[in-house]
Amino acid sequence: MELSADWVVGFVDAQGEFQVHLSRRSDTAAGFGVQAELVFVRSAQDRQVLYALKRFFRGGVVRRLIDNQISLRVRNLSALERVCEFFMAHPLKTRQNVDFRKFRRIVRLLREQSPLDRSGLLEVIEIASKMTTADRERLEEVRRELLQHG
Amino acid sequence: MELSADWVVGFVDAQGEFQVHLSRRSDTAAGFGVQAELVFVRSAQDRQVLYALKRFFRGGVVRRLIDNQISLRVRNLSALERVCEFFMAHPLKTRQNVDFRKFRRIVRLLREQSPLDRSGLLEVIEIASKMTTADRERLEEVRRELLQHG
Repeated sequence: MELSADWVVGFVDAQGEFQVHLSRRSDTAAGFGVQAELVFVRSAQDRQVLYALKRFFRGGVVRRLIDNQISLRVRNLSALERVCEFFMAHPLKTRQNVDFRKFRRIVRLLREQSPLDRSGLLEVIEIASKMTTADRERLEEVRRELLQHG
Repeated sequence: MELSADWVVGFVDAQGEFQVHLSRRSDTAAGFGVQAELVFVRSAQDRQVLYALKRFFRGGVVRRLIDNQISLRVRNLSALERVCEFFMAHPLKTRQNVDFRKFRRIVRLLREQSPLDRSGLLEVIEIASKMTTADRERLEEVRRELLQHG
C-alpha cells in the first residue's frame, strides 16, 4: 500500500496522537526519562495501513492490543525527527498542528541532550502540559518531585 | 482552507462515519424513511476544517454539539452522490472502504426510488446491518415490523 503525503496529513489530522510520557529512570542524574511518540490505534483489520505508515516514517512498532485493536508507536528519535520534518513541510490542518509544534520542541530538546537534566525535564513538562494529550496530573507530580530535590 | 483529494481520503479513512438511519414516516406507504449520511464530529476548534469539508462536498450542515464539539452531517442526496463519486475515484484505504461500498449501494437505492417501498426498505436493512456503524437492534426491529405488516 502506497501512501501519499496528503493522505498521511489527513489521517494524522483526524486520528494520530502526539504523546509525551515521563518515566522513572534510576540510571539518569535527574531520575526521569522522557518518551515522545506518535501513536495510532486502529481495528486489527487496518493492520496494512499501520504497516504502510511504519514504512512511510521508516520507524515504529506495531503491536496487537486487546479487543481486536492494534497500535503503531513511533518512538525512535531518528524516526521522530523524520516525522517532524515531514509535518513541517506538510502542515497539519486541525488543532493537531498545535500539539505537533509542542511535540517538535520536545523532540528537539531530546536530540540536544540525552538524558535530559533537571532543567531540561522541567522545560519538557512545561511544554507537554499544554498538549491536549497531556496527563497533567502525572506531569505535575514529576515537576513537584524535581523541584523538591533540586 | 483548501483541501486536496488525498487529504480528504486520509481524513475520512481515519474518522468519517458512513451512517444509515431509519425513521417512522407516516406519509409513506411502507411507514419508514431512510436517512443516509456522512458524519464528522470534531472539537469546536476544528470548525474551519468541517466548513472546508462542507465546501469540498458542496453540502452538509455544521452544528454545535455539547462538550465543545461540532458535527458536519452530509445528508442531501445530491451531495451524497458527489461523496460516492469522489470515493469511487479516490478509494479509501482502511476498512472504511467496506462501509463505504455498502453506503453507496444504499444511496443508489434512495436515488432510484423515493420513498422506498417495503422491499426497498428490506434491502436497505439487509445492507445496512452489515455496516460497522449499524444500530443492528433498531434495524432488526424495523425489519420485523415490515415483515409482520407485509
